[in-house]
Amino acid sequence: MIVSALLTAVGLNLLFTVLLFALYSILRKLPGNLSIYAPRLLAAARQADDGETLTRAHFNIDNILPSVGWVRAAWRLSEEDLLASSGLDGVVFIRIFVFCLRVFSVAGIIGIFVLVPVNYLGDQLSIDDFSDLPNKSIDLFSISNVDNGSNRLWFHFSAAYIITTFICYLLYNEYKYISDKRVSHFMASKPMHNHFTILVRGIPVRGGGSISNTVERFFMDYYSSTYLSHVVVRQTSKLRHLINDAENVYRRLTHLKSVPRTSQNVGSGAGTGGFFRRFVKKDPVILYSKKLEGLEENVRLYQSEVTMAGEEIPAAFVCFKSRFGAASCVNIPQSDNPTEWVTEPAPEPRDVYWPFFSTSLTQIWISKFIVFVASIFLIIIFLLVAAFVQGLTYLEQLEIWLPFLKNVLKIAVVSQVITGYLPSLLLHLLSSQIPPLMKLFSTMQGYIANSEIEKSACGKMLWFTIWSIFFANVLTGSVTSQIQMLLDPKDIPALLAVVVPAQASFFIAYVVTSWTSVSSELTQTMALLSHLFTCPCSKKASNEKINEPSISYHSEIPRILLFGLLGLTYFILAPLILPFILVYFGLGYIIYRNQLLNVYSPKYDTGGKFWPIVHNTTIFSLVLMHIITIGIFGLKKLPLASSLILPLPILTLLFNEYCNKRFSPIFRAYSAEALIKKDRGDENSPEMRDFYEKLVTAYRDPALMPLNCSGTSNDRHSPLLS
Amino acid sequence: MIVSALLTAVGLNLLFTVLLFALYSILRKLPGNLSIYAPRLLAAARQADDGETLTRAHFNIDNILPSVGWVRAAWRLSEEDLLASSGLDGVVFIRIFVFCLRVFSVAGIIGIFVLVPVNYLGDQLSIDDFSDLPNKSIDLFSISNVDNGSNRLWFHFSAAYIITTFICYLLYNEYKYISDKRVSHFMASKPMHNHFTILVRGIPVRGGGSISNTVERFFMDYYSSTYLSHVVVRQTSKLRHLINDAENVYRRLTHLKSVPRTSQNVGSGAGTGGFFRRFVKKDPVILYSKKLEGLEENVRLYQSEVTMAGEEIPAAFVCFKSRFGAASCVNIPQSDNPTEWVTEPAPEPRDVYWPFFSTSLTQIWISKFIVFVASIFLIIIFLLVAAFVQGLTYLEQLEIWLPFLKNVLKIAVVSQVITGYLPSLLLHLLSSQIPPLMKLFSTMQGYIANSEIEKSACGKMLWFTIWSIFFANVLTGSVTSQIQMLLDPKDIPALLAVVVPAQASFFIAYVVTSWTSVSSELTQTMALLSHLFTCPCSKKASNEKINEPSISYHSEIPRILLFGLLGLTYFILAPLILPFILVYFGLGYIIYRNQLLNVYSPKYDTGGKFWPIVHNTTIFSLVLMHIITIGIFGLKKLPLASSLILPLPILTLLFNEYCNKRFSPIFRAYSAEALIKKDRGDENSPEMRDFYEKLVTAYRDPALMPLNCSGTSNDRHSPLLS
Repeated sequence: MIVSALLTAVGLNLLFTVLLFALYSILRKLPGNLSIYAPRLLAAARQADDGETLTRAHFNIDNILPSVGWVRAAWRLSEEDLLASSGLDGVVFIRIFVFCLRVFSVAGIIGIFVLVPVNYLGDQLSIDDFSDLPNKSIDLFSISNVDNGSNRLWFHFSAAYIITTFICYLLYNEYKYISDKRVSHFMASKPMHNHFTILVRGIPVRGGGSISNTVERFFMDYYSSTYLSHVVVRQTSKLRHLINDAENVYRRLTHLKSVPRTSQNVGSGAGTGGFFRRFVKKDPVILYSKKLEGLEENVRLYQSEVTMAGEEIPAAFVCFKSRFGAASCVNIPQSDNPTEWVTEPAPEPRDVYWPFFSTSLTQIWISKFIVFVASIFLIIIFLLVAAFVQGLTYLEQLEIWLPFLKNVLKIAVVSQVITGYLPSLLLHLLSSQIPPLMKLFSTMQGYIANSEIEKSACGKMLWFTIWSIFFANVLTGSVTSQIQMLLDPKDIPALLAVVVPAQASFFIAYVVTSWTSVSSELTQTMALLSHLFTCPCSKKASNEKINEPSISYHSEIPRILLFGLLGLTYFILAPLILPFILVYFGLGYIIYRNQLLNVYSPKYDTGGKFWPIVHNTTIFSLVLMHIITIGIFGLKKLPLASSLILPLPILTLLFNEYCNKRFSPIFRAYSAEALIKKDRGDENSPEMRDFYEKLVTAYRDPALMPLNCSGTSNDRHSPLLS
Repeated sequence: MIVSALLTAVGLNLLFTVLLFALYSILRKLPGNLSIYAPRLLAAARQADDGETLTRAHFNIDNILPSVGWVRAAWRLSEEDLLASSGLDGVVFIRIFVFCLRVFSVAGIIGIFVLVPVNYLGDQLSIDDFSDLPNKSIDLFSISNVDNGSNRLWFHFSAAYIITTFICYLLYNEYKYISDKRVSHFMASKPMHNHFTILVRGIPVRGGGSISNTVERFFMDYYSSTYLSHVVVRQTSKLRHLINDAENVYRRLTHLKSVPRTSQNVGSGAGTGGFFRRFVKKDPVILYSKKLEGLEENVRLYQSEVTMAGEEIPAAFVCFKSRFGAASCVNIPQSDNPTEWVTEPAPEPRDVYWPFFSTSLTQIWISKFIVFVASIFLIIIFLLVAAFVQGLTYLEQLEIWLPFLKNVLKIAVVSQVITGYLPSLLLHLLSSQIPPLMKLFSTMQGYIANSEIEKSACGKMLWFTIWSIFFANVLTGSVTSQIQMLLDPKDIPALLAVVVPAQASFFIAYVVTSWTSVSSELTQTMALLSHLFTCPCSKKASNEKINEPSISYHSEIPRILLFGLLGLTYFILAPLILPFILVYFGLGYIIYRNQLLNVYSPKYDTGGKFWPIVHNTTIFSLVLMHIITIGIFGLKKLPLASSLILPLPILTLLFNEYCNKRFSPIFRAYSAEALIKKDRGDENSPEMRDFYEKLVTAYRDPALMPLNCSGTSNDRHSPLLS
């Protein structure tokens, strides 16, 4: 890629970014869009009963002019507010940006003010000709331009050591900061159901008797002093289907009722009188109401049946009188047979993933293996697709594939757009389809909580991203070359040192394109479009429940970490990428703070359990950088530097080992000290009586709750039936 | 190796084995050798005060004739008796032999009656000439002789599937059997100190106050209902040095006193009267007595000093009132800082490795890393030595190295002994020097119990054995070729398929040689020699304490498992090895049963924790066999079989995963169910009062015990001082 192509890409994306920002600042002020751009605000207002005033704001000329007030608000948001509104997970999410901004500020300064000049002053690639900068390859700014065996390479060597030290220092501090936050967040928390509850699976039933009785007997026998109550999980998959049907019918009914009668008549019944009569007779509203009525009755009958004598699943939520009681029961194996009475901490009630419970432990082990194989296949299939996309950066190849485009491709702008912009856009689009699939895979693995599912999906997405975006592109997309690399570990440094720099231009373009994609997060394009298409024809009920979306960490975190990986691996090779990455993180920081404040509400709180993933990925990126650096010094005929880099990955891995020993246990379980202190704090609290009462019923399958029976708005719906 | 050389080796070793058996059956009946061949019997008799009758048995002609009575006794020993005398670890140790005997009986039948005929009927290697069997290479019986692409290879294919299924079936049963045994052993056990005690490390002292007070405060605060008492560990390394000195002096003193006066005079004082007088004045007995007296005084003073105000180490044994109390404290993290209040189950008091306690947690992590590196270096150094030994199997090479031997080597017997016997003998000797070194390494890793040290050393020895004996020999000893192999994983099957069969003769010879080495375990050659050299000149005090040796699992188990590995890897390639391996396990079974009965007394009881190591190694051997089989089918131009073997390693690993999930938790901790049941059983027992009293003092550093002060026999020694 030449400099002018890069500038084109930067220009285009800057333009898009500014446009999107402007668009957002206008759209967000339109009252009709409140449910998209500030659902949290709207929901809060609804609760305070002034939602109407919010949506019915007066028209004002200011409202259609772009403004930057929201940027200021997002910038000023303090960490305490963030913690209160989005939980510790939200804080951790924003800390990723803070961490990356810190890393790449320092890396950027070293890269731009030391490495880029050093690279540019070399003359491995070209003669010294300072004129005609726009037509020069951006490789001139990369390490490829430094002369072989040149002593200037020691700048790069020192840079590797300096940045590694700095990042390890930051990683340690950040891990410490977040684990302290986790503990203090726990210490400041109100009594929470999940702290008092454990989940027991693999309950053995011997010689008759119900599961409920077996659980009762077991815990009364062995934990009589701390045991409070239990809820056995019941088979509700059939019931869930029924409820789903009812909800679908209800949704269609509301839609029908909201469409004005006239348009309905015009659409379907503009015929003879007989036709019209038949139409009235079969008025869909009445039809659907009847159907819904029947379904509801069914659900209610079936619910009581299940509650009374439904099939019990050998799993139960067991509640304890104290946090310490629950924790000490989780941590000790209950039975001599490790497949029986398997205990684990219960998730928050809102976080439980109910459909899972029908699977047994053996099924879970098998499906884990199947999912593992399926994930690998998914990566391989994606690689085949990516191979095609990657081919687009080579114009000549494109001309061979699609010869009829030859003339079009000769136009400079078109070719620049295609080489600089199209491939990365396609990759962005394609990879956005993967997270839901990975989440589905994780769901199949039998996790009991949504948070666990997302955490597992996050790990899968990370592997996917690293293999399908990074390695697929540096190894020019072929599956075989990736497998080849894995099977020839000793050649990895040399191989990477050749192929990674070759893709510098592609990844610079990729980073630049990402500005647009992160800004489009702001405008919520998909949500906006669906809102626009449903809005004009249906008069939305003003008191309908607002759908507050939650941020999907499993797709966002890997995407952000990919840029960290790119920045670190290209730090030595092509430092020109760093300022663009810095801009990405800057945009992301502001945008996601705004989104967490206004749009996303937390669906669960893992207490910062996503941070260890971030930590480990950063360590992986560092080691990958070291490996590539070893290779590049070998290529550049500076074997001494190549061997002197060797201690760096080893020290980094030892540092990681230390951090994991020091901090990761904090993310697995709370300490006895903390638990007992919290328990004592509550001991004399008058609220605990209420809390225990609620605890007993907290873990009930939502499918069995009568209130929920016809979907999201029983309150509106019931009058219709009566 | 030709058949006659193999027969020579078999003949030689059979002869040695029979000789050693005969020698043992004679030697064991000599009263003077009782302390070597039946120390357990002697110790038991001493306790019952009839040791004198045992040692002073009348001379009888039967006593100097070989007999097989001991074989019968060893054969008849029931598992209950073994459990009573050697603990569960002894039972597990013998189960390894039982397991291997079962595996190799079936493997042997398949190998000898199916595979050997199939191999011999091929004609890849030679023309069909059934005469002159003795001069034929034993390769004729190996898979190398089967024609390329022959359908007869499907026999080998089926054999691989059959034996894998059979072994997995056995492994599952054995794991189940031993884990059941472990639980029932626990349920039948008397109250044991270690079940009630935990070890706490990393005790933080903030703002003055002793460690003892901190521990007391912490456990009284958080575990007031179950906490009983605690013992803080004190720095006693200096004291231990003093005690060591005193013991050395005492040993020398006893030796001097036991040597008859006359020989002493003859040796040193046959001079003038003045000389004689000076000699009397400096009588070493008196001198050493004085020195010992002084040392003892020192020890006593220093002991009271340490007990009063000695430097405390931030580690303590904390005793609880119940097993469940101790277990629930171990399993939960105590502090928000995972490096503080680190808990782990306490080992048995006799099992504690006291010198360790001076190291902090960080030191332990660092030394773990150092030990890891050192172990790898040890393997590499050993490989260099092994390379030389391996060279001996190639006579031509030996002639090049040592040209002066040329004439000697031409004698048939000499060359047969050298190629068939010497290399393996040298390897046996060399590798016997490694276990103490590995144990030292494990000691440095900061384990708190001798059993843990031996378990860790066992793992290290396994790696060592597999790399230095197996891989070093198949890859003809060079370090670089081993590293090469690791770095080229995709070529492993093909490489192994070439090199492993090539070493079949060496390993057959190795197995045959092992008969002698396992029989020499019976005669305890080293102990016998040292006994013979000390016996004639010193009249051993009849009431001196008998030194009951303990079996060192960390050197024995890997050695046995190596033969399992050899048998499995050569099962397909050279089934001729199987009967020899079967003989080895048969000998081992009888010999070790005898030794456990008479010689070795258990130093600790891990409750069968060595079994998972055996299980995992067997799985490793199986997968290695599969990999080699894949390679060999490739070489033999039967790619279909090669790919159809592929599911086998995957299924085996999945089976292993299942077994680990199903059984290994049982070996990590006892279940709440079992603990609470045991606690309830003891609740009303009158003995518990006594037990608690003893518990409080059970974990005292032996260096601080007054009784122990002048070594092993305070009772004899004290009168001398008074």
